[in-house]
Amino acid sequence: MKAEGGAGAAHEKVASGAGEKEDASGTASTNGSLGSAKDDLSAVMPGWFFEISPMWPGEAHSLKVENVLFQGKSDYQDVMVFQSSTYGKVLVLDGVIQCTERDECAYQEMITHLPLCSIPNPKKVLVVGGGDGGVLREVSRYSSVEQIDICEIDKMVIDVSKEFFPKMAIGYEDPRVNLYVGDGVEFLRNASEGTYDAIIVDSSDPIGPAQELFEKPFFRSVAKALRPGGVVCTQAESIWLHMHIIEDIVSNCDILFSFLSYAEMAKSMYSQFSGVIGFVICSTEGPAVDFRHPVYHINEDDHCHKSVGPLKFYNSEIHSAAFCLPSFAKRMFN
Amino acid sequence: MKAEGGAGAAHEKVASGAGEKEDASGTASTNGSLGSAKDDLSAVMPGWFFEISPMWPGEAHSLKVENVLFQGKSDYQDVMVFQSSTYGKVLVLDGVIQCTERDECAYQEMITHLPLCSIPNPKKVLVVGGGDGGVLREVSRYSSVEQIDICEIDKMVIDVSKEFFPKMAIGYEDPRVNLYVGDGVEFLRNASEGTYDAIIVDSSDPIGPAQELFEKPFFRSVAKALRPGGVVCTQAESIWLHMHIIEDIVSNCDILFSFLSYAEMAKSMYSQFSGVIGFVICSTEGPAVDFRHPVYHINEDDHCHKSVGPLKFYNSEIHSAAFCLPSFAKRMFN
Repeated sequence: MKAEGGAGAAHEKVASGAGEKEDASGTASTNGSLGSAKDDLSAVMPGWFFEISPMWPGEAHSLKVENVLFQGKSDYQDVMVFQSSTYGKVLVLDGVIQCTERDECAYQEMITHLPLCSIPNPKKVLVVGGGDGGVLREVSRYSSVEQIDICEIDKMVIDVSKEFFPKMAIGYEDPRVNLYVGDGVEFLRNASEGTYDAIIVDSSDPIGPAQELFEKPFFRSVAKALRPGGVVCTQAESIWLHMHIIEDIVSNCDILFSFLSYAEMAKSMYSQFSGVIGFVICSTEGPAVDFRHPVYHINEDDHCHKSVGPLKFYNSEIHSAAFCLPSFAKRMFN
Repeated sequence: MKAEGGAGAAHEKVASGAGEKEDASGTASTNGSLGSAKDDLSAVMPGWFFEISPMWPGEAHSLKVENVLFQGKSDYQDVMVFQSSTYGKVLVLDGVIQCTERDECAYQEMITHLPLCSIPNPKKVLVVGGGDGGVLREVSRYSSVEQIDICEIDKMVIDVSKEFFPKMAIGYEDPRVNLYVGDGVEFLRNASEGTYDAIIVDSSDPIGPAQELFEKPFFRSVAKALRPGGVVCTQAESIWLHMHIIEDIVSNCDILFSFLSYAEMAKSMYSQFSGVIGFVICSTEGPAVDFRHPVYHINEDDHCHKSVGPLKFYNSEIHSAAFCLPSFAKRMFN
């Protein structure tokens, strides 16, 4: 979750609820520039976290806060963790919810297993972003995998995840993991040609520094770093809200890759706005990849790494179903 | 949408924004009993509609309000329509958003075409609830249909929809429609045995008066009113939030029907909380119905009734995909 800083124009406010501790004494707000939404939302609900962003104008989500557990400012973004009343602990970067304990399984499993189940015996996998460790946890289920590289720019995200989200950060405990703290764009620019079977881009939204992860030079490096018939899966927002972003990704990727498809994670809950998030998934020239029909049927109980529990969300049926889009979206992709 | 009154314990507040007219002079709140949430949310955001309900504790959605267009109190519920800044006009009953102009297509198309495409040549269709007319609009696409009965309890919902939501209420213009304003439970109790090919229960949440539409006596009447091999599709909440409600529906329906399945509307936007809403869909003893594989492939441009535009959401692929559930939900249904 989050590689390259975050939503510079996003906004957060937390005010203290009855059960709150010292961290939440009063109202805490980040320094992100807010734009016009600030005026509308100047009255803050006590005891609630309030999420608003130019990525979803005119709407907002709120979660009830029991207790703010961490607030810090890294070199790249504001980092916060709070205990919500009904979603477990929540990770917030620059005012935008990245994941909740209650539903993180859905996103982490889909962004990982959509690409990895589409190719036989992945050996070398790169995660760009994904500092919370959830994607690592999912990659660690594959016994074929020999090397898991991760390049996350923000060490604070890693540290906070290890402290507050042990069920995601458990991914770091796999001995196959090599952690690089740094810029994913530069990391890929320097990667050897044809290294990886799969690259998973677990980025935040394309406003602010993460923007480069949605641009053509980055995808050119990705294509070069993949082996022939290798796959990339990148977080690609919502067909309901962000079709222009998706169209940009598709046009950036179209000539770089042989096969390109759009999958939608249909059944999420809170932490993906609009309840829907999608992925652009592509493969390089080489052995053909049929994304709709997974070649590896991962078992719900697959976990070659100790302490990683059974799959909660992903299965082969939902893999194929993710590529079935509503008519309005199909028309746009055709 | 909404047959039997609404969420008695729900809450609404609207405060005036810059562009508002006389209807929104200050803060308008309904009389619904609110419970503990009231205290937490006593500070209201100016210019925003704020949706909170015991159906989704600890979280809330908000939409920016441009203008409140209607506020009234029927015999059954509080009825409100507002112009939102990014979702078009919004229909609110007892403080809970029922639909927005921007995304109503998804729910209306799925609750209608999942059952109607599962059987050959439906002739007689009953809609319980659905006062906004959106389901009628979708049923009107079928040239095989000869009779469309609708039983909606709240005349104010019908009138308001005709005034403010002409693209949904256009469903009433089909000459095959017979409107009954009354109690759906009683209507079905008195219905002749074996009358309908399909019954669509477009209800609100099972708190307050709509509760009866989730109970066994109602489903017994539904089963009796259906022909052999007839189908019922009922709104059945979210697998993320309301598994207990779904389990109750399933246990109520299990012995009454031959085939029972759960489908999820995967790709909604705002007006279904958690971005996900599901349907319990059943068929009576008789010709077998395979819900996963639609027998009728409705064309995106099918509309035998004038002025009903092309389908926006539903297609045969998404029909089948709707029955693919995440692993945690599959385990519960097995």
